[in-house]
Amino acid sequence: MTASATAVACCAPLAAPALDEEAAVATAELFKALGDPARVRIVNLLATSGEPVCACELYEPLDLAQPTVSHHLKKLVEAGLLEREQRGKWAYFSLKRDAVEKLAAVADLKGACC
Amino acid sequence: MTASATAVACCAPLAAPALDEEAAVATAELFKALGDPARVRIVNLLATSGEPVCACELYEPLDLAQPTVSHHLKKLVEAGLLEREQRGKWAYFSLKRDAVEKLAAVADLKGACC
Repeated sequence: MTASATAVACCAPLAAPALDEEAAVATAELFKALGDPARVRIVNLLATSGEPVCACELYEPLDLAQPTVSHHLKKLVEAGLLEREQRGKWAYFSLKRDAVEKLAAVADLKGACC
Repeated sequence: MTASATAVACCAPLAAPALDEEAAVATAELFKALGDPARVRIVNLLATSGEPVCACELYEPLDLAQPTVSHHLKKLVEAGLLEREQRGKWAYFSLKRDAVEKLAAVADLKGACC
């Protein structure tokens, strides 16, 4: 398991009763992966598409060059948020269901505070 | 309104049907504010405390010096996640209810994908 793959695997809810340093690091990694407007837009585009999206379909809506898009996709895959599937020449990306559920749980502080 | 105060105010759900650039920037800012282990731990400590927490009570559990803790608290306040209340010599911090609800909504991709 790579260090980056641990972000989704090891993160813990912000409202967890006892959040240790390791879980805090993994949780921060997950948020950090989403701390960029281009990555927020990629996740949004994948979330609103019913099917895996070719990297080549992202350049235009993001208004970014291919290497930049590839860099952001790599970061999101490393954080464990996206799944990458090779189809011939192109890579297709989709959101990972378990990561999506984990993210929602991590960010859910309702009931724990205020 | 400061630029940083817009993060919580202007962010949009990752699964929003049409996420414009401005909303993507604000959403990324919100995630970025949480993209640090110390800030994740601060939010966790505040979430699991039933009442506002004095900055002075954070140094020991975080194992960080006062200026570092102050820096992280400032970033979280700027992102709109924390409320700061001055009580005599000390500042007390708590999670902002609307920010907590917004964060949960922003990170909730369930039903939108997979």
